[in-house]
Amino acid sequence: MAGSSVKPTPVLKDELDIVIPTIRNLDFLEMWRPFFEQYHLIIVQDGDPSKIIKVPEGFDYELYNRNDINRILGPKASCISFKDSACRCFGYMVSKKKYIYTIDDDCFVAKNPSGEQINALEQHIKNLLSPSTPFFFFNTLYDPYREGADFVRGYPFSLREGAPTAVSHGLWLNIPDYDAPTQLVKPRERNTRYVDTVLTIPKGTLFPMCGMNLGFNRELIGPAMYFGLMGDGQPIGRYDDMWAGWCMKVICDHMGYGVKTGLPYIWHSKASNPFVNLKKEYKGIYWQEDLIPFFQSAVLPKECVTVQQCYIELAKQVKEKLGKIDPYFIKLADAMVTWIEAWDELNSTAK
Amino acid sequence: MAGSSVKPTPVLKDELDIVIPTIRNLDFLEMWRPFFEQYHLIIVQDGDPSKIIKVPEGFDYELYNRNDINRILGPKASCISFKDSACRCFGYMVSKKKYIYTIDDDCFVAKNPSGEQINALEQHIKNLLSPSTPFFFFNTLYDPYREGADFVRGYPFSLREGAPTAVSHGLWLNIPDYDAPTQLVKPRERNTRYVDTVLTIPKGTLFPMCGMNLGFNRELIGPAMYFGLMGDGQPIGRYDDMWAGWCMKVICDHMGYGVKTGLPYIWHSKASNPFVNLKKEYKGIYWQEDLIPFFQSAVLPKECVTVQQCYIELAKQVKEKLGKIDPYFIKLADAMVTWIEAWDELNSTAK
Repeated sequence: MAGSSVKPTPVLKDELDIVIPTIRNLDFLEMWRPFFEQYHLIIVQDGDPSKIIKVPEGFDYELYNRNDINRILGPKASCISFKDSACRCFGYMVSKKKYIYTIDDDCFVAKNPSGEQINALEQHIKNLLSPSTPFFFFNTLYDPYREGADFVRGYPFSLREGAPTAVSHGLWLNIPDYDAPTQLVKPRERNTRYVDTVLTIPKGTLFPMCGMNLGFNRELIGPAMYFGLMGDGQPIGRYDDMWAGWCMKVICDHMGYGVKTGLPYIWHSKASNPFVNLKKEYKGIYWQEDLIPFFQSAVLPKECVTVQQCYIELAKQVKEKLGKIDPYFIKLADAMVTWIEAWDELNSTAK
Repeated sequence: MAGSSVKPTPVLKDELDIVIPTIRNLDFLEMWRPFFEQYHLIIVQDGDPSKIIKVPEGFDYELYNRNDINRILGPKASCISFKDSACRCFGYMVSKKKYIYTIDDDCFVAKNPSGEQINALEQHIKNLLSPSTPFFFFNTLYDPYREGADFVRGYPFSLREGAPTAVSHGLWLNIPDYDAPTQLVKPRERNTRYVDTVLTIPKGTLFPMCGMNLGFNRELIGPAMYFGLMGDGQPIGRYDDMWAGWCMKVICDHMGYGVKTGLPYIWHSKASNPFVNLKKEYKGIYWQEDLIPFFQSAVLPKECVTVQQCYIELAKQVKEKLGKIDPYFIKLADAMVTWIEAWDELNSTAK
């Protein structure tokens, strides 16, 4: 599988952590060995902490189970979800690196149309190291910083320097990231279309951020990458990455950072059970109709100049405006504040 | 070239006109014969009206030269540019069809990565007949209405009906649509990347619309597709399609219509002379730094409920706000009004 033709990612050996939430043995890492082996893994074990998670030999990793999370965060551990992959954000908090790549344990190496294995991490790093173009002006040849591309005629020169890229959102071949109703309606739909592009989500536009295959600049945006309260004891699941994506996008827009989506693809192997998903999602499907207008109209005051300040302000607005919809959002708003407190405790030199 | 495998576009035989601005014999149509022959062509001859333009046999067409334009529009012909491909918009005005496809005469049939000829017109029609998703929410699997795609998890259900699509902006393989400075810096750059996607430009986001390979719904947005005053006697060229694109996008955003970009590709054969282009463009390059903020902040009042009303209001704002930059914009604002008057004269039953 590996072969001598696999080029390792050329940069960032000491600047990136890979965060993996899991409840099972990490056999999937075998396929990723040529791409991940040189990096440090942060494994966030969900569910029963007494279960032993096997990690293939040769990987450099640290593993946190629920007991570890409780011990490290004390009462603040309440902000970290249990029995939901939202727990992964604990890994972002304990990392000390500049970049994070997070991937689900049912995601494998995809192939491009030429049949070559895709080094997803390398593409995420390319995306994060090159600027974005969020300023209300779409480049029709997509990412102008990619090899063989540029800004097209009519693109203002003053905008060509771009903005720092905070997030690189990768996609999935095979099983698309559909909600339960769409899964039920189209059980056999597979994503076979390899779209060879990366683009910036324009300022003012939201998107559904999926946590399956996601890179971000932790120094720029880490504290906004809170995956919310999901799973055990909560009325909702499968909205952890969505919630993080909406909060993050509003804050990136305010801070002048860019968010890219598109390449790289991973191979998503297994559709989760749509009936189970429907149970987790149904309140989210209902609530999101109010959440989207809320985030679309959210304005952060100029005084918010750090991501932490933005996030605390957003938590306040969540409590005020979404608290009316359901008491869950009051609890979530409090957890957002707790998350920032915990983040700052563990990252005392953080911006 | 044609071959029995070429499928004709299945719809819209009587609903679509192809508009071609030109100064030369239309030999390029030979390659398009299997795709265009069933449609009616409107040829807008630029430059010396005494020159005879040869059209390959078998095509159904009408041809207008400058004398025809002057005769048909009388004094209002002043709004139609001369010695610039901006003259093509006269063709939009005289058409009576629902859809327009416009293409440059140096654009040929491109091939997809499988080596098959791309029926550009068929893809434009698909784009125009399916809805758009402009409402501030980007679908990460791109056009959700395409075969094999859908809305992803987290996409609000209330937005899934989408909006009517007014414009389908196609792209170019081989010679990219670069401005003169980029042409000069990268004379050998060729676009070889086939990006297999169509996406909606979000509401509130502008883009550089290129007139080389462009489809639109004339009934929805025709009167906004004015290509401005360019070329002979004007201080600027090569901003005709840009101007139309910015005006059109502001109006589509106001009216709730969608604008798509991406597929189909055509093969753009010849780079225009960058030195000549620089002369045409340089004021545009300078002015666009003010034009973009103007269009980004332009607001149309609720009272504007037709495209014509929107366009007249926009002309007023151009005169007021851009007239300060250069007297050219006062002349252009007047021409915008003349264009609408001429449009309404020729389209008396138009909305």
